[in-house]
Amino acid sequence: MYRTKTCGELRIANAGEKVTLAGWVQRLRKMGAMTFVDLRDRYGITQIVFNNEVDEALCDAANGLGREYVIQLTGTVAERSSKNANLPTGDIEIIAEAMTVLNKSEVPPFTIEDNSDGGDDLRMQYRYLDLRRNAVRRNLELRSKICFELRRYLNDHNFLEVETPILTKSTPEGARDFVVPSRMNPGQFYALPQSPQLYKQLLMVGGFDRYFQIAKCFRDEDLRADRQPEFTQIDCEMSFVDQEDVLQIFEGLVKHVFKATRGIEFTEPFPRMPWADAMKYYGSDKPDIRFGMKFVELKDLTEGHDFVVFDSAEYVGGICAEGCASYTRKQIDALTDFVKRPQIGAKGLVWIKVEADGSIKSSIGKFYSEEDLKKMTDRCGAKPGDMVLILCGKTAQTRKQLNELRLEMGNQLGLRDKDTFAPLWVVDFPMFEWDEETQRYYAMHHPFTMPNKEDISLLKSDTGAVRAYAYDMVMNGVELGGGSIRIHEPELQNLMFELLGFTPERANEKFGFLMSAFKYGAPPHAGLAFGLDRFVSMIAGLDSIRDTIAFPKNNSGRDMMNDSPAEIEQEQLDELFIMLDKEKIASKK
Amino acid sequence: MYRTKTCGELRIANAGEKVTLAGWVQRLRKMGAMTFVDLRDRYGITQIVFNNEVDEALCDAANGLGREYVIQLTGTVAERSSKNANLPTGDIEIIAEAMTVLNKSEVPPFTIEDNSDGGDDLRMQYRYLDLRRNAVRRNLELRSKICFELRRYLNDHNFLEVETPILTKSTPEGARDFVVPSRMNPGQFYALPQSPQLYKQLLMVGGFDRYFQIAKCFRDEDLRADRQPEFTQIDCEMSFVDQEDVLQIFEGLVKHVFKATRGIEFTEPFPRMPWADAMKYYGSDKPDIRFGMKFVELKDLTEGHDFVVFDSAEYVGGICAEGCASYTRKQIDALTDFVKRPQIGAKGLVWIKVEADGSIKSSIGKFYSEEDLKKMTDRCGAKPGDMVLILCGKTAQTRKQLNELRLEMGNQLGLRDKDTFAPLWVVDFPMFEWDEETQRYYAMHHPFTMPNKEDISLLKSDTGAVRAYAYDMVMNGVELGGGSIRIHEPELQNLMFELLGFTPERANEKFGFLMSAFKYGAPPHAGLAFGLDRFVSMIAGLDSIRDTIAFPKNNSGRDMMNDSPAEIEQEQLDELFIMLDKEKIASKK
Repeated sequence: MYRTKTCGELRIANAGEKVTLAGWVQRLRKMGAMTFVDLRDRYGITQIVFNNEVDEALCDAANGLGREYVIQLTGTVAERSSKNANLPTGDIEIIAEAMTVLNKSEVPPFTIEDNSDGGDDLRMQYRYLDLRRNAVRRNLELRSKICFELRRYLNDHNFLEVETPILTKSTPEGARDFVVPSRMNPGQFYALPQSPQLYKQLLMVGGFDRYFQIAKCFRDEDLRADRQPEFTQIDCEMSFVDQEDVLQIFEGLVKHVFKATRGIEFTEPFPRMPWADAMKYYGSDKPDIRFGMKFVELKDLTEGHDFVVFDSAEYVGGICAEGCASYTRKQIDALTDFVKRPQIGAKGLVWIKVEADGSIKSSIGKFYSEEDLKKMTDRCGAKPGDMVLILCGKTAQTRKQLNELRLEMGNQLGLRDKDTFAPLWVVDFPMFEWDEETQRYYAMHHPFTMPNKEDISLLKSDTGAVRAYAYDMVMNGVELGGGSIRIHEPELQNLMFELLGFTPERANEKFGFLMSAFKYGAPPHAGLAFGLDRFVSMIAGLDSIRDTIAFPKNNSGRDMMNDSPAEIEQEQLDELFIMLDKEKIASKK
Repeated sequence: MYRTKTCGELRIANAGEKVTLAGWVQRLRKMGAMTFVDLRDRYGITQIVFNNEVDEALCDAANGLGREYVIQLTGTVAERSSKNANLPTGDIEIIAEAMTVLNKSEVPPFTIEDNSDGGDDLRMQYRYLDLRRNAVRRNLELRSKICFELRRYLNDHNFLEVETPILTKSTPEGARDFVVPSRMNPGQFYALPQSPQLYKQLLMVGGFDRYFQIAKCFRDEDLRADRQPEFTQIDCEMSFVDQEDVLQIFEGLVKHVFKATRGIEFTEPFPRMPWADAMKYYGSDKPDIRFGMKFVELKDLTEGHDFVVFDSAEYVGGICAEGCASYTRKQIDALTDFVKRPQIGAKGLVWIKVEADGSIKSSIGKFYSEEDLKKMTDRCGAKPGDMVLILCGKTAQTRKQLNELRLEMGNQLGLRDKDTFAPLWVVDFPMFEWDEETQRYYAMHHPFTMPNKEDISLLKSDTGAVRAYAYDMVMNGVELGGGSIRIHEPELQNLMFELLGFTPERANEKFGFLMSAFKYGAPPHAGLAFGLDRFVSMIAGLDSIRDTIAFPKNNSGRDMMNDSPAEIEQEQLDELFIMLDKEKIASKK
C-alpha cells in the first residue's frame, strides 16, 4: 500500500500521528520559507507543509512539483494555525518528512477545479482529467450509490437480477436498431436491444416471478440534446400482480433511494393523475407539480364579443401568474416572443392584469368590458397583483403551448427549485395514438400493453378512446420511468397486433417466439422501467444526463476521447461478408 | 395481487388459514373422489385437494386442468394425513374452495422436471419453459445472489461501480472484435469491448481510486465447448496499491461470496504458487490442488540403461497413483490410450507398480533392475500398493500431458469432489510468451502489465526470462480470474510496446489516448477480473457455464429461441452504408 491514510480522513484527533498519503498536487504556494501543497485524492484534500529551514532539499523538491504530479508523502499530522472551515481536513496539515514523486504531469489542458476553464469539447477529449474534478466525480459516486441502493431494495423484495443478451434480435420499440454482422452466420446480423422487453416477459413465462436488471439499451437515433446512443435502464417485471401492486412496489423503491442517497423522506403517497387530467390541466403527460398554475378553460366566457381570434379558436385557456401584474411591457413582449418561437408556435399571447387596486388592464380591453375580463380572471383565481396569460387555437396544440408558457413562468417566478421534488403517477394512458401521416394507430406504450378492462368492448368500435393499464412516474416535469400491465392471453395479443396493422406473417416474424411462449401458460404480469441516467441526474440536480455518465458520446455519437467509431481493416470486413458502399459514403462527405 | 401466499411458504403453523395461491399445474392425480394438484411457483410446490363429494363442479374444473395451466386458487390450509418429508410444504395441503384458470397451456414439448426428457436443442428453443425447471432457475437465483454479495463487499470496501461504454473502440486483447456500423459516421464502426481494460485504467488516471463493474464483454471467436460470444466479467481496478493489497482484497471478496452464498468458510489464507512451480509440479498454470500427485522428475535416475525412449527425452516425469498397483492390464491399456489420444499426444505410458509385498513390477522391467526402479518409486513417494505413471519427451509438452494424466487419475480415484474447494493464487507469471510462428514475443497477460522490478534489467537482454506482476486466482483447476499491476510510466509503456513489436505509429493508433492520459499523472494502479459465468458455475457445482446464463447461445453463436442473428432489411443496410458480399456468402453456403 502506498498510503496509510487518504487525503480526506485526517482530523484534529489525528494530530501527532505519522502518516503516508498519496495523491495529486492540486495547488502549490510559496510563502517565505514555507511551501504549501494541497494534495488531492478521491476522498478529499489535505494540506502539506514543507519548511525550507528544516529540510532544504525536501523543500526544494516540493518547489519543483507541478500541478497534477502524483506524489507519495510521509509526515506528521499537526494542528493548523489558520484553519480552513470549508475543508473537512481544514483543521490539520501534514509537516512533510519525506516525499516520492510517483509520476510527473504535463500541464493539464484545463484546470482541475469545480469551475473549470475547459470547454465541453476539451473536457470530453480529456475526459480522464475531467473525471478528476469533484463536480464530475461526485455525480458518478452518486450513481454508484443509487445503483447499490436500488439493488438492495429490489433484492430485499425478492427480485432476481437476470442478465439478458446484448447480441439479440430486433425489438419492436420502433426506433432504429444498432446491428452487428455475424461472422459465423454469413449475411445475418444481431441487433443490440432497445430494451429487454421481450426477454423480461419471457422470464415471467419462465416463472421468475420478480425480475430486474440494470440494463444497457441502445437506440440508433439522431441524437437530440440530451440523448445517448447507449443508455441504462432499471428494468423490472413482476408476475401475479395488478397495477396497484406495481405502483406500490416502485413508489417504495423511489422513496428508498431518495432516503438512502439524499436523506429526503417522502412521507405521503405519491399523487396520481389520469392522463386526461394531465393534458387538460397541464398540457403535458409529465406535469411539473412543484407549482400550481393549472390551466383554466375560458372558451365559454370569451364568445359573442366579436373577438375573432378567440371565436375561431377551438380552445381558449389561461393560467394565473401570481404577482405578475407588475410585468412591464418589455417583459410581456419577451413572453410573447417566447410563445411565438417556432419551437412553440403560438400566434400570440393575451394578457389580463388585475392591478393592486382591483382594476383590470388587458391586451384585449377593446373587445371585452372590465366585467367580462373579471369573469375570466376570477375563474383563473387571480387576485390583485396577478396576471392571467391566455393562449388559444386547436385544443391539443394550444395545451402544449400553454404548457411551455406555464413552465417558463414557473422558472421566472422561481417555482422550480432543484431541491424540491414533486413525484407523480400519471395513469390511464390511452392505448393508441393515431398517426395522421401513415393513417393508422400506433401503440402509445407498446404492443404488449393491456387495455383497460372497462374499455375492451371499444377496441374495434372506438379504438382511440381505449385506455391502457399504463403508468408513468413523473418528477418535477421529467418522466423517470413508465410501464404497463402486459397482455398474457394469446388471443388478445393477436387482436392487438391486428389493430396495430401487423399482418399475421409480420407479427409472427417479429414476435413469433413470444406468441409461442404465450401458448404454454403465461402468468398475468406487469412491469416498469426507469431511465437510470435521468434518475441520477434528477437526484443529483443536474440539467443534463451527460455528467451522470463516465464516458459519454457527443451529439454525433462519437467518443471524443478515443475517437470512435473508427475505420476497420479490410480483412475484418471480408470476414464479416460485408462491403462498404463507398459511392454512397463519398456522396455523403 | 393475485395471491396472498406463495407456493413455498405454508407450514403446519398456517393450518386453518384461508389463502390464495397462484401458479402452474405441475401434476394432477385422481384418487377416488379426490383430485390432487401440485401447484408450482418460483418459491415451491403446494398440494391442492379437490373433493368431488364436497364440490362437484369445482372438482370437475380441476379435472379439466392440464400440465402448466396457470391458476389462481383459494382454499384453507390443512394438515396432511400422509406428509411428504421431501417438500418444505409437505406437512400441509390446501382444501380448494375456488379456482380461476388464468391461462391455459398446450402440452409442453418436454417435462418440467429436474430431470427433463428434453434434449439440449429442444430446451434451448423453448428456453422459457426450461427456465421453469428448478434445476435451471436455481442457478440463476444463485447468480443473482452472488452478484449482490459481490457488490455488497466491493461497496463496503469503497469501490465505485462505473459503467463503461459498450459502443467503443477495438481493445487490444487479441481476439476478434464484434463491430457495429455507425449510421451517423459513414464507413466507420464501433467495436464491442473485449473487456473494459483501457477504460478502467483511465478511471484510475481520473482518480477514481477503486473501481468495479459487472461488465458484459464480447469476443467473436469460434466457440469452443464452453465459450459464449458475450460473457460477463467482474472487473476491478485500484490505485496506490501493490500486489499484496490486491491479493488481500480479492481473496476477501471470494471468501465473502462463498460464505454468503454457500456457507463455506475459508479460514486459512489462500496458498500461493509461483507460475514456474505450477508448471514444474502440475504442468498447468491452473493446478487443481484438491489432491497431491505432484510431478516428480526422474531423468537423472533413468540415464545409462540403454532405454532409448528415456535417454533421448529431455524430460522424464512421474506421478504416484495411490492404491493403483491393483490396476489390471485393461485399466492400464485404457490409460495408455487416454494419453495417446491426439488431444494429448503422448507416445506411450510407462508404469511401475509397488506390489503389496514391496516387490516391483514395471513395463520397463527389462531395462531397469528392481533396485533402479525402486529408486524411482521411492522418489515418487510410492508405498506398497501404489503405482507410478511416467511420461517422457520435450519438457513443456510432457508436463502438459502429465497434467492431463494427473487430472484423469484424480477423477478415477475420486479426488476431485465438487463440494471441496481448493483456492490458489498463481503468481509470478512470465511477462512474455514466444510465438514460434510469428517469431516474436507476445504479452502473456496484456501489454499494460508491469514487469517485476528485479527483472527490469533483463527486458532487452533476456526478454523471455522476465517475470510479471501478474496473478491468477485458481480454484479446483479452473481459472476464476486474473490480473496484474499495470505500468503507469509512459516511458516503460513505450518500451513494452516496442518489445511487443508495435511500431510507434501502430501503438499510437491503438493506444494513443491511453498514452496521452499517462502524460498527466497516472497513479500506480493494479487490477483483476473474474469471469462471472465461471465463478457462478464453480459455486453451483456445474460442469458448464451455459446453465448460469438465462439465454445462452449455441456453438454457432445462435439464439435458438428467437432465431437470431437474422437477415435485416435492405433499407437498414443502405442507411448503414454497407452492402452484403453476396458472392462470398453464397460460396460459404
